[in-house]
Amino acid sequence: MLTMKWALAPALLLMVACNSVDKKSAVIEIPVPERPAGQEDMVGFAAEPLDSVRIGIIGLGMRGPGAVERMLNIEGATIKALCDIEPDRCDSAQAMIMRAGVRPADIYTGNDTVWREMVARPDLDLIYIATDWKNHAKMGLAAMEAGKHVAIEVPAAMNLDEIWALINTSERTRKHCMMLENCVYDFFEMNTLNMAQQGVFGDIVHVEGSYIHNLSEFWDAYYNNWRLDYNHENRGDIYATHGMGPACQLLDIHRGDRMVTLVSMDSDPFTGPGIVERQTGQRPDDFKNGDHTMTMIRTANGKTIQIQHDVMNPRPYSRMYQLTGTKGFANKYGREGYALEPDSATAGNMPDLYNLSAHNWLTDEQQAALVERYTHPFITEIGEIAKRVGGHGGMDYIMDYRLIYCLRNGLPLDMDVYDLAEWCSLAPLSAISIENGSAPVAVPDFTRGSWQKLDGYHQYNLEL
Amino acid sequence: MLTMKWALAPALLLMVACNSVDKKSAVIEIPVPERPAGQEDMVGFAAEPLDSVRIGIIGLGMRGPGAVERMLNIEGATIKALCDIEPDRCDSAQAMIMRAGVRPADIYTGNDTVWREMVARPDLDLIYIATDWKNHAKMGLAAMEAGKHVAIEVPAAMNLDEIWALINTSERTRKHCMMLENCVYDFFEMNTLNMAQQGVFGDIVHVEGSYIHNLSEFWDAYYNNWRLDYNHENRGDIYATHGMGPACQLLDIHRGDRMVTLVSMDSDPFTGPGIVERQTGQRPDDFKNGDHTMTMIRTANGKTIQIQHDVMNPRPYSRMYQLTGTKGFANKYGREGYALEPDSATAGNMPDLYNLSAHNWLTDEQQAALVERYTHPFITEIGEIAKRVGGHGGMDYIMDYRLIYCLRNGLPLDMDVYDLAEWCSLAPLSAISIENGSAPVAVPDFTRGSWQKLDGYHQYNLEL
Repeated sequence: MLTMKWALAPALLLMVACNSVDKKSAVIEIPVPERPAGQEDMVGFAAEPLDSVRIGIIGLGMRGPGAVERMLNIEGATIKALCDIEPDRCDSAQAMIMRAGVRPADIYTGNDTVWREMVARPDLDLIYIATDWKNHAKMGLAAMEAGKHVAIEVPAAMNLDEIWALINTSERTRKHCMMLENCVYDFFEMNTLNMAQQGVFGDIVHVEGSYIHNLSEFWDAYYNNWRLDYNHENRGDIYATHGMGPACQLLDIHRGDRMVTLVSMDSDPFTGPGIVERQTGQRPDDFKNGDHTMTMIRTANGKTIQIQHDVMNPRPYSRMYQLTGTKGFANKYGREGYALEPDSATAGNMPDLYNLSAHNWLTDEQQAALVERYTHPFITEIGEIAKRVGGHGGMDYIMDYRLIYCLRNGLPLDMDVYDLAEWCSLAPLSAISIENGSAPVAVPDFTRGSWQKLDGYHQYNLEL
Repeated sequence: MLTMKWALAPALLLMVACNSVDKKSAVIEIPVPERPAGQEDMVGFAAEPLDSVRIGIIGLGMRGPGAVERMLNIEGATIKALCDIEPDRCDSAQAMIMRAGVRPADIYTGNDTVWREMVARPDLDLIYIATDWKNHAKMGLAAMEAGKHVAIEVPAAMNLDEIWALINTSERTRKHCMMLENCVYDFFEMNTLNMAQQGVFGDIVHVEGSYIHNLSEFWDAYYNNWRLDYNHENRGDIYATHGMGPACQLLDIHRGDRMVTLVSMDSDPFTGPGIVERQTGQRPDDFKNGDHTMTMIRTANGKTIQIQHDVMNPRPYSRMYQLTGTKGFANKYGREGYALEPDSATAGNMPDLYNLSAHNWLTDEQQAALVERYTHPFITEIGEIAKRVGGHGGMDYIMDYRLIYCLRNGLPLDMDVYDLAEWCSLAPLSAISIENGSAPVAVPDFTRGSWQKLDGYHQYNLEL
C-alpha cells in the first residue's frame, strides 16, 4: 500500500511542479509508483476458462438483491454464498434463491468482519461486492489475495492509494478486478458505441458524461448515512464512473489513447448543508461537496472529455452521454438522437438516411433506421431477456451476463482494472485540482506504459 | 492603449504566479491597468435623453441589412448615414430606406477609411457597427472619440488591449459602448430571466451557454475569408458572447457578483485544416482553433459557468442556455423545458403546477402555465411586432428597440461596456489558459472595484 496521502499534500505537489524549469504549465504531477519487480500488466489479460462460476456476494442492501436475481437467470452462474451485516437482508436474498428452486447459499452475517470468512473459502471463483463505497477496495483486495476474481460496485476505489493497491494486487495475483459499471451496457450507449466503432461518427473529438441525479428522496436510505457523510467530507466529483465509463470506451482509453490532463471546478455547496440540518437540526459550516462539480480532460490524441456531477438540485436525471465526431453527433439525455454529416449516408451505405443536414437532428424515421442497422450484437443476442429480468431497464443484466460469459470462456473481461482505476481516479484527481484553485493535474498512466498495447477497445465474444 | 501583448508572454505571467508565496494555486494573474485620473466608472450610467436617435451604420454585409430593416420599424430611430466598402451593399440598404418612404441616408463607400468621415459628422448620436470582428473595436473607439454612442456587433473586442481601450474611452468620453448581443433577447431566455429574478429557481448555482453552430455551409461567405482566417490563427473560445450574455445576466455579473477564475481546454483541430485544404488545395499544419473548446468559470459568490464552442462538427445548433438552481432547472436546446422542486408550486403561488417532481421535466401543460405566468414584460409589450419584423425570430428587433428606447428615455442601457468586456474577455483569457496547459486564469475586474455598486441586474423601463 502507498503511504503518501495525496489529497493532504496538494501545496507540496504544486511547488514541485512550479519549480521544474522545462514545463510550460503549472500542471500538478501525480507520482506513479514503480511496478514491483516480477509483476506484469493486466492489459488484455484472460484467465483460465471456468465451466461454472461459483459466486459469493457481499452487500445485500440496495444493489445486492438485484444481482442475486440476475445471477439466478444466467447460465453457468452459481450463488454459493451470501453476506451482509444484517441477517434479514440475507434471508430475503436466500428466499429469492429458494424461489428459483436451486440449492440455497451459505449465509455469512451478523458483524462487519464475517465477510472475510466467506472470501477465504476455497470453493468460490468470484466475489461480487455491493457494499458501501468505503468498503469496496478493502474487500476487493482481500478477495484477490484469497485467489478469487472480483467484481466491485461503483466506485470501486475512492482514492489513489486504493486504486494503486487494486492494480498491484490484480497484477500480482493475476486475478480479474472489474468494476460493475452498468451504464456502459445501456442500450443507447451500446448501439452508439457500435456505430462509433464502425466509423459512423468519423474521428471522435469530444465526449460528455455526467451524474445528474437529485437524491433528495434517497439521502436517508443509506446505511449509517454513509452517502451524505461522504458528500459532507469530500470535495471533487466523487461519483464520476457512470459518465466516465461510456466516454472512455468511445475514446479507446488505454487501448491507444490515454487521459493526460484534467481540470476541475465546483460551485459552493448551496444545498448540502440544508440536508444535514434537516437530519440533525444543526446546519454545518464544513460541508465540502459543491452542488455542481465539473471536470475537463484532455487525451494524448487531442480528444476532450467533460464530466459533471450534481446530486443536490432539482434536475431531470441525466448521464449526459454525448459525443461529437467529425462526421456525426449523438446525445442521449434531454433529447435522445443523432446528427450526421450529409456524406455519412453513403459512407454508411444506408439509403434510408436521406436529406441529412449537419445542423439538424435525424428524424424519428431516420433514427430508427440507423439504430436498426447498428444494433449492438449483445442487444440482438440477449436484449429481450435483459429487459425481462431487468435491472435499470436491462443494462445490469447485460453487465452480469458478460462478466459470467467472459469468465466461462476464458476471455478478457469488458472492463479491466485500469478502467476501474481511470474512472475512479476522477474523485481524487478532481479534488486535488479543486483544492488547488482548478489547477491542471497530470492523470497518471495507470497501465505504467502499456496504454498502446491494444489497438482500440473491444468486447470479446466467441460468436462474433 | 496597452502595449503588452498578453498572449505572447504566457510563460512569463505564469512564472510570476508560481513564485508568489501566499498563493494556494498557480493562477495566472492578468494585470489590471490603473484607471486614469479624473475618470469614473460607467456602472449604471445614463446619458441625456434624446428625442430622436440619429444613426450611422457601418458594415452592410451579413448583419447590417437586418439592422437597417429593424431601425426603420422603431419609433424615434433615424438612419442618417450608411457605410460599407462595397457600393452595391450600400445601394441595397438605401433601397430598403426608400421603400419605407423615409428620407434617404447619406452613403459612405468605396474604401476602408471612408467610415472615419461618417463617424466625424456632428449630426449623429449613435454609430452602429456590423463589420468583421477585427474592425469592431477600432471603429467603436473612433466613434466615441467623435462624441457618439456606439453599438458594436459581437464580439466587440478580440483581445485585452481592445477591451481596456473601449472601457477607458467610454469612461473618459461618457459615451455608451454597448455590444449588440442579441441572444439575451431571445424569448426563452427573457422569460427564464424573468423567472430567475422572481425567485422561481431559488439560488442559481450553475449556468451553461455555448456556441455550437456548424459553419460548413458559411465559411466561404465571409469577406476576404476573415472568419476562417481568424479560426486558423487563434486558439481559445473566440466566439463566446452568445453563451456568456444570458449566463452573466442570470448571475448578476458586476451587479453583485463577478467572475474570479477561468480555465479552458480545447481538442485538437480535427476539422479546420480540411476546410482550408478545400479552399486552397494545401492542408495547413498550423491551424490553431480546436474543434471543441470549453471553459469553466467560478464567481466570487461561488457560482459556476460553463461555456463551449464548436463551429466545425456536425451538431444541431445550440447555445445551450441551461441553468441549475436550488429550486429549479431550465434548459433550452435539445429539449426545451423546466424542472421545479415540489415546493416551488406554493412558492410561486401557482395552482396549475401540481405533482411536481425534482426528477422530471414539467409536462407541456405545466410549462405553458409557467411561461404564461412569467412572460417577460418586453415580450408582452413588443413580442408580436418583434416576430413580424424578425431578425432571428424577433430577438434582434427587441435588442434594437431596447437600445433606442433607453437612449431616448435617458436610461442605462441593458448592456454596458463592462458586459462587453466580460463577455469578450473569454477569447483572450481562454487562449491564455489553453496555451498554458489549462492553467487557471484570474478574470480581471473590469469595473475596477465597482462590481458591487448595483444590487442585481436590471433592464430599466419607464412603464415597469
